[in-house]
Amino acid sequence: MALIVQKYGGTSVGSIERIKAIAERIKFAKDQGHDVVVSVSAMGDSTNKLIALSRQVFSDKNMTQDCSREMDVLLSSGEQVSASLLAMSLQEIGIAACSLLGHQVSIQTDAKHRRARIDSIGTERLVETIKLGQVPIVAGFQGVTSKGDVTTLGRGGSDTTAVALAAALNADECQIYTDVDGIYTTDPRIEPGARKLDQITYEEMLELSSLGSQIMQTRAMEFANKCHIPIRVLSSFNSDFTTQGNGTLITNKYNDAEAPLVAGITFTRDESEINIRNLPDMPGMAYKILKPISEQDIEVDMIVQSATRDGHIDFSFTVHRENFAKALLSVEKTSLNFENTLINSNAHVVKLSVVGVGMRSHAGVATTIFEALANEGINIRMISTSEIKVSVLIDENLLDKGVRCLHKAFALNQKKET
Amino acid sequence: MALIVQKYGGTSVGSIERIKAIAERIKFAKDQGHDVVVSVSAMGDSTNKLIALSRQVFSDKNMTQDCSREMDVLLSSGEQVSASLLAMSLQEIGIAACSLLGHQVSIQTDAKHRRARIDSIGTERLVETIKLGQVPIVAGFQGVTSKGDVTTLGRGGSDTTAVALAAALNADECQIYTDVDGIYTTDPRIEPGARKLDQITYEEMLELSSLGSQIMQTRAMEFANKCHIPIRVLSSFNSDFTTQGNGTLITNKYNDAEAPLVAGITFTRDESEINIRNLPDMPGMAYKILKPISEQDIEVDMIVQSATRDGHIDFSFTVHRENFAKALLSVEKTSLNFENTLINSNAHVVKLSVVGVGMRSHAGVATTIFEALANEGINIRMISTSEIKVSVLIDENLLDKGVRCLHKAFALNQKKET
Repeated sequence: MALIVQKYGGTSVGSIERIKAIAERIKFAKDQGHDVVVSVSAMGDSTNKLIALSRQVFSDKNMTQDCSREMDVLLSSGEQVSASLLAMSLQEIGIAACSLLGHQVSIQTDAKHRRARIDSIGTERLVETIKLGQVPIVAGFQGVTSKGDVTTLGRGGSDTTAVALAAALNADECQIYTDVDGIYTTDPRIEPGARKLDQITYEEMLELSSLGSQIMQTRAMEFANKCHIPIRVLSSFNSDFTTQGNGTLITNKYNDAEAPLVAGITFTRDESEINIRNLPDMPGMAYKILKPISEQDIEVDMIVQSATRDGHIDFSFTVHRENFAKALLSVEKTSLNFENTLINSNAHVVKLSVVGVGMRSHAGVATTIFEALANEGINIRMISTSEIKVSVLIDENLLDKGVRCLHKAFALNQKKET
Repeated sequence: MALIVQKYGGTSVGSIERIKAIAERIKFAKDQGHDVVVSVSAMGDSTNKLIALSRQVFSDKNMTQDCSREMDVLLSSGEQVSASLLAMSLQEIGIAACSLLGHQVSIQTDAKHRRARIDSIGTERLVETIKLGQVPIVAGFQGVTSKGDVTTLGRGGSDTTAVALAAALNADECQIYTDVDGIYTTDPRIEPGARKLDQITYEEMLELSSLGSQIMQTRAMEFANKCHIPIRVLSSFNSDFTTQGNGTLITNKYNDAEAPLVAGITFTRDESEINIRNLPDMPGMAYKILKPISEQDIEVDMIVQSATRDGHIDFSFTVHRENFAKALLSVEKTSLNFENTLINSNAHVVKLSVVGVGMRSHAGVATTIFEALANEGINIRMISTSEIKVSVLIDENLLDKGVRCLHKAFALNQKKET
């Protein structure tokens, strides 16, 4: 018997049919003897509908007033609806349940509306509810300030609610139900041999951004990491409840003695690259180039600077494609201050990343990557590495080929013997 | 400068367009120098939509569980949406405003979900908000138990919220905005000469049920009567804001020295009549007839018993037409216990009522009614009287004729000289 926090996202509670299916799933866990605490998102696209309604209020598309306090009151109604409907659905099949809103739990946050952070979670009402044999259905995404005003936690805030509940209650596991049955070694739409991972670390999950961020909010991941809450990513669309122990378990280290070398291959589409050659090699050059770009709130991803050659350097970086034109203009302006510079750019590149905590202790990973790409005739435009990730920039029309050859090079379709 | 509580019903906040129109109306009152506190219903038919959603949860049409606690959580989300949207609309036109939910105000109720009664209203947050120059937009219909659970006040509960706010804040006036511009002497669809009343008493308003109940909930009226809160019924669809002092004022007595003899003519359609003749005149006869009827939860309206004649009496009563068959069957069963009884019934009758506090001190009202109806050849099937009301039962196809002749008999189309 364990204490489990289950979180159901918008698609998992998208209709009454779906809500009823979830009620059956919760019943199964209860019947297994577990104590269950549930956190829910708003039904399907109801949050977007509420946002659309609020947009009609404002004649100008840019809200002239800071309405974030009222937006929180408006948006939090969505989780209120799904929480009460789920509680009713449980009662209908004979499981005692009780919806709890942010102010009832109480989920205390700071007063930064629309992106509030949780300060504390009161466990009194939750524990009381569990002791009464009821399943607490907590409205996710919402909290309350010390003054009693409603706040919301930002996009994906229900994940944060679930992890915070698990931490406050010292739960055995926090299950994140979504529309996929776990984390894969890469996107199965590109590599049909992609394999679901049984386990992964928080670090790897954070680095596997393009695979992971759609499944779980980064902030919630960081929170879970800090509090050592085991997370399990599962599908709510799987009607075989006995698979509840499956999915992908996310923990701070592998249960097995040895971590796999590589956990997965991820990628970011829509990147763009800007390269400046023959810049004088002097202190502060990177700052001079990037300062006017960051001042426009443009996020720079990869940054590479070559070694000096004849007192000159080459400097390259990537930005999201939507900021390409602005960034290029900025670089062109800055380079007017220097003689003989040469600017190259490419708005059609993608970033491939190989992620794994195992590579910390193994040197050969980068070599394997370069060899695999070379064998396929894929040119590497830029390289950047971190402790548990190697990223390369390539032409966007080589994305699928690149993912497949790297997946094969690390034999990710085969489960490791443990 | 006055403190005014304004209540806007579902049709008044039925769309963003309507909410914006109301924001302009509130701005007008603020610009006149008044302090305004607002209570809102849910938008249009949103409450019915939420109810329909909850019905889908239950396989059986009769809910097998008592889900009233969760229904309150679900339904209260409707007023949360309209309150936040109205607050945003006010901010957009430069009026500081702040939505407040039941737990924020705080509107403390008992724990009878779906029909809770207000125990107390905290004024601290309201007064603080007003002092900050903000318009408090209170979500109507909802409250919170001492434990922090959400409750709702039953149909028309926003009226109760408004009156309770006015009482707690000792407001100068409670304005009920609706889709009609006041209380009329009778239904203008039947008598085009129907005149809007400038003033009426709580008692008269309560008796004018068919005219009044569509405009304001009975319980809210009784509350206002008890607390001496002046109520003004107004239209939110009138774009001339300078008419805010008009509508119909409802108070506990007339400002003028003398009350008008008759305030208005009201009627109830869909009545049915059952008459039993030759019942033995013995104690408990009325009880014997009506007990099995009330046991079926059928409400009996008019009850008339004739004087004894040869040791026998006639007994008549009315029920709503939908209960006619059940009530008739019950009476037929009961009458089997007595010899020679004769049952007559008519499922196509209506009740006409003449209402006015002035008739307390004037004897001639009933006479005028009977004379007017006789002149039109309208047969009276039953009569019942109270201190401020005379009701008669007539054939349903004579309804329009009856209303018009009574309206004329009391010269209600003409305003009294005062």
